[in-house]
Amino acid sequence: MGRWEPDSRGRLVQAALDLYGERGFENTTVAEIAARAGLTERTFFRYFTDKREVLFWGAGTLQDLLVRAVAQAPDSAAPIDAVTAALEAACALLQERRESAQKRQSVIAASAELRERELIKLASLSAAMAEVLRQRGVSGPAASLAAEAGIAVFRIAVERWTNEVDPQDLSGIVRESLDELKAVTAGT
Amino acid sequence: MGRWEPDSRGRLVQAALDLYGERGFENTTVAEIAARAGLTERTFFRYFTDKREVLFWGAGTLQDLLVRAVAQAPDSAAPIDAVTAALEAACALLQERRESAQKRQSVIAASAELRERELIKLASLSAAMAEVLRQRGVSGPAASLAAEAGIAVFRIAVERWTNEVDPQDLSGIVRESLDELKAVTAGT
Repeated sequence: MGRWEPDSRGRLVQAALDLYGERGFENTTVAEIAARAGLTERTFFRYFTDKREVLFWGAGTLQDLLVRAVAQAPDSAAPIDAVTAALEAACALLQERRESAQKRQSVIAASAELRERELIKLASLSAAMAEVLRQRGVSGPAASLAAEAGIAVFRIAVERWTNEVDPQDLSGIVRESLDELKAVTAGT
Repeated sequence: MGRWEPDSRGRLVQAALDLYGERGFENTTVAEIAARAGLTERTFFRYFTDKREVLFWGAGTLQDLLVRAVAQAPDSAAPIDAVTAALEAACALLQERRESAQKRQSVIAASAELRERELIKLASLSAAMAEVLRQRGVSGPAASLAAEAGIAVFRIAVERWTNEVDPQDLSGIVRESLDELKAVTAGT
């Protein structure tokens, strides 16, 4: 080793997702991930604390992106519009990574522990957005409701997007799901 | 022991909530809970597998209640109206237990592990309601969105209700929060 490895993190993520899909998350070791990526275990641990973190390290980036987008929305934007702007930014990040997102979703769906971890990460994203909304002067309950609605829409939209045989644009699905939420909450 | 103890479960819950509030959840033992309730550890384990379960055993009852109410809503009811009917039933269950709900909330708020457990329980309630909605012929995404919106409203309403100095009716707060969600999703 010692020489510079281009995109080691990306190669490790790719190798891990492939192995989790082939053998299951439980049955995959860090040594196997590193070997598949053509890297050492030491390199793995330079990027991730454990094999679970490979699935969740992106949550920090996503949270920064969502928070920044909500904070930067025009003062006149309604809470749901600030949240929508944040989801658009997240869509732009994910749009080119559908295959990875798909693999990640199916690994998580297969494990109760990973589903729980995903729920907790999504709740953190929601709490972070609600906090920025409150800093923008939105009342506590409205801020929480707008953020929770946004995250519910996002989660359901990503699920549809990764399951579709002939996938549309993720942001189109997010907009559709938002409209569906509006229709649903308005009732008949 | 051996003789019949009236409402042993209720006394254990009460004793546990008091002790968790006084000493913290981590610092309370099952032996202490049993002693405070004037019962034995053996009786404790007849009702609960561990001290955490004291805080969550009601989730099963709540889920049955929500699922039944959604299933029994008139065929003509919109998804959000079926969910609202379910939340009303849950309010009726909780209304007389505000003090316990308050203690429970503050114990959970103080522990990351318990907050995570609560999130997972709430997600199960949402998934169960979504499933009954789908059985009623509601499309997958609309069912998930209505259920998630309902649980978000419920969670936020219970939080407001337990924090209020001069508490209103829980079901009044749920209705207000639902209206707030409608206003929020409709945007400006």
